[in-house]
Amino acid sequence: MKKIYVIAACIIFIAAGCTRSKGTVVFQTDFGVKDGAVSAMKGVATGVDPDLKLFDLTHEIPAYNIWEAAYRLEQTAPYWPAGTVFVSVVDPGVGTERKSVVLKTKTGHYFVTPDNGTLTLISQSLGIESVREIDEELNRRKNSQASYTFHGRDVYAYTGARLAAGVIGFEQVGRELPSKVVTIPYQKAVVQGDSIMGNIPILDVQYGNVWTNINDSIFKVLHVEPKAKVEVFINRNGTPVFHQDVEFVHTFGEVPEGRMLAYMNSLMNFSLAINMGNMADSFHINSGPEWNIVVRKKKPN
Amino acid sequence: MKKIYVIAACIIFIAAGCTRSKGTVVFQTDFGVKDGAVSAMKGVATGVDPDLKLFDLTHEIPAYNIWEAAYRLEQTAPYWPAGTVFVSVVDPGVGTERKSVVLKTKTGHYFVTPDNGTLTLISQSLGIESVREIDEELNRRKNSQASYTFHGRDVYAYTGARLAAGVIGFEQVGRELPSKVVTIPYQKAVVQGDSIMGNIPILDVQYGNVWTNINDSIFKVLHVEPKAKVEVFINRNGTPVFHQDVEFVHTFGEVPEGRMLAYMNSLMNFSLAINMGNMADSFHINSGPEWNIVVRKKKPN
Amino acid sequence: MKKIYVIAACIIFIAAGCTRSKGTVVFQTDFGVKDGAVSAMKGVATGVDPDLKLFDLTHEIPAYNIWEAAYRLEQTAPYWPAGTVFVSVVDPGVGTERKSVVLKTKTGHYFVTPDNGTLTLISQSLGIESVREIDEELNRRKNSQASYTFHGRDVYAYTGARLAAGVIGFEQVGRELPSKVVTIPYQKAVVQGDSIMGNIPILDVQYGNVWTNINDSIFKVLHVEPKAKVEVFINRNGTPVFHQDVEFVHTFGEVPEGRMLAYMNSLMNFSLAINMGNMADSFHINSGPEWNIVVRKKKPN
Repeated sequence: MKKIYVIAACIIFIAAGCTRSKGTVVFQTDFGVKDGAVSAMKGVATGVDPDLKLFDLTHEIPAYNIWEAAYRLEQTAPYWPAGTVFVSVVDPGVGTERKSVVLKTKTGHYFVTPDNGTLTLISQSLGIESVREIDEELNRRKNSQASYTFHGRDVYAYTGARLAAGVIGFEQVGRELPSKVVTIPYQKAVVQGDSIMGNIPILDVQYGNVWTNINDSIFKVLHVEPKAKVEVFINRNGTPVFHQDVEFVHTFGEVPEGRMLAYMNSLMNFSLAINMGNMADSFHINSGPEWNIVVRKKKPN
Repeated sequence: MKKIYVIAACIIFIAAGCTRSKGTVVFQTDFGVKDGAVSAMKGVATGVDPDLKLFDLTHEIPAYNIWEAAYRLEQTAPYWPAGTVFVSVVDPGVGTERKSVVLKTKTGHYFVTPDNGTLTLISQSLGIESVREIDEELNRRKNSQASYTFHGRDVYAYTGARLAAGVIGFEQVGRELPSKVVTIPYQKAVVQGDSIMGNIPILDVQYGNVWTNINDSIFKVLHVEPKAKVEVFINRNGTPVFHQDVEFVHTFGEVPEGRMLAYMNSLMNFSLAINMGNMADSFHINSGPEWNIVVRKKKPN
Repeated sequence: MKKIYVIAACIIFIAAGCTRSKGTVVFQTDFGVKDGAVSAMKGVATGVDPDLKLFDLTHEIPAYNIWEAAYRLEQTAPYWPAGTVFVSVVDPGVGTERKSVVLKTKTGHYFVTPDNGTLTLISQSLGIESVREIDEELNRRKNSQASYTFHGRDVYAYTGARLAAGVIGFEQVGRELPSKVVTIPYQKAVVQGDSIMGNIPILDVQYGNVWTNINDSIFKVLHVEPKAKVEVFINRNGTPVFHQDVEFVHTFGEVPEGRMLAYMNSLMNFSLAINMGNMADSFHINSGPEWNIVVRKKKPN
């Protein structure tokens, strides 16, 4: 009888091992995919545990553009399950004093990255559970100390993979830091009377659509009816760039080809586009902390 | 003894679970990979089942180019095993009345897509087993109803992942439709006397080679010997663009660098190229439903 | 009692099956990712075994550039675990007499490729254990003989997948060849008095940094102190292109933005860059077998 129980225990143990999914790592860099840098990172992760699931967010972040790295994490991470480990390496300050950290959010997502502003948005939207500094004595690929310039591979990919695979727990990343991260200042979405001020954090680059950080719960304050018009002002560092009335609709298909429209994008943020056209190119609009927008409700004439 | 059988049954059950491969999803879009849209789709799929195998066909379909989406599916799907689920999102009509469908082909491949012409070629080559309309009441990511513009993530990726993972069967996609799909008209390959008329569905963009829809079993009708010449006419909407005699060979290596050649491409379709050069650029040839070709057998002088 | 042992053996067998990781295949081509060629290769590999782990090195090798294919393998392969199978298809001579081979290195990595120079660097750095010619009678996708031009999919991807999945052993690839591969001549790094001659095998394209083949153990011979200057000459086929004194530092952060620096890159090779700038563009420097460099230690004035 005892043997039966032993066998049963074995079976349960194996079943648990079999059915437990290995961890997931999602990589983001400004390395591009023309050389082998991203592949080397995945090789290191595969060396940690060949059953890890390795994915890409993007490797086309413009070189050194920390703001865009921050935005892409914000845009994407909520759609991945809790426990997913993001490794983001946009690191103009490699070799300087910026800390290497792992952020655990209140939603249970992990972000392995230089703490240089990359966590600006995700820390606010998902909430900071805990921040730990990567202890490079413990969490660095063996025999890699001599390589000063590729923290992405030797520290970030390695640590992210070990965390995702359960080789180390979050506590073993390194010492806990105060619950805050380095942030880049920007105009948050705020209501002022019959207007909303906000920021253009990013363009929908493939189509040239203009996205804002004004989400639907803020926009609702204006009580804009579908098919009504809103007055839109866009400025860069305070200099006016665009001023027009735009129809607010649910879907692109509601306006003719070539017509401008305002809509809620897939992240439920107020956005501007030209149906089958390129709004950003047409009006020389770009994005970043210095690009701001004001949306005002049109009064009926 | 009974316990032994129970244990044996357990083992078989676990073994079955262990060894059964999880489903495969192949994504195609016109989103590009510079932003987080593709990654969000994969996050949603991973949330459905972390053991799904997720691959890319391409995300560089030119924006809104349904014809090219159709062609890429046609070019690639036959090389994937039966049961593979393709999720193709090139959707200029998002928010309009185009249906969201899943096509099951006679070969056992699944295609999750807006029914806007994307299925033009694959439905003809692999054959229609059944078409079902996605019931968005059942097959839509939870809490996503408010987002009107990202069907790719909330409906197509979600439904494709659930189908591939076996969370739903094909019958649970939604109601069955008549066995047909929306198609884009184009010149099929046909023999006329000593000539073949056909279409240039696509360029081999990386090398500038010109591909046609004239496959080898049709081309054989002309009885062209290896190293013999054929007369080639190319026109756009009937306007002549190119007319030359071209040598028909087995491999690029048979002609000198810089020389034009006709050959059977990797899909066994009649094609034109310049060895180590770019035929499409050199002669301003492009592709699509409006680009046609006539190939005529040269009579010996 | 006997039954207990049988059951135990079953459990161990299943456990072994469950926990054994399936093989890993890493693909490199000059196909780009705009069409379906890479996806077709992965479809074929998935058809061989759906549990294979399939990764990309890069598909952006410039068309027909065998030298760069060689360099990317050299840069990346050492970071992947032993047993990884690389499939590299940059094949200007498809259809000519170049052999299709699998190289097994002394480190236990496999390289499936046309033997056209692609193995120049990796064969020297990882060492040749054995070279076998792919027997296309045995190792070619069924019903693919008629397709002359896509060895990448029908032979290389198919053979690499079968090798990685354990469907065939290395011996079943085909007959063993002499332990050598086709190589492209280039300037190896050599010390001459107070100078080192070497080659610029590649640029760090994303940032425009200039990489050399002078590794740190050779560079140490010059005894250059951190923050000291070195004299750098760059020539193309012997024609001078660049001549300046450059500060040698550990990290980019040690020099101001816009300043040139010399450093050891992530592969521990002597390299040149402009902090937050593009060195290659600024000085019209490129890379390849014809681009050479001389680094001379500056004597204190």
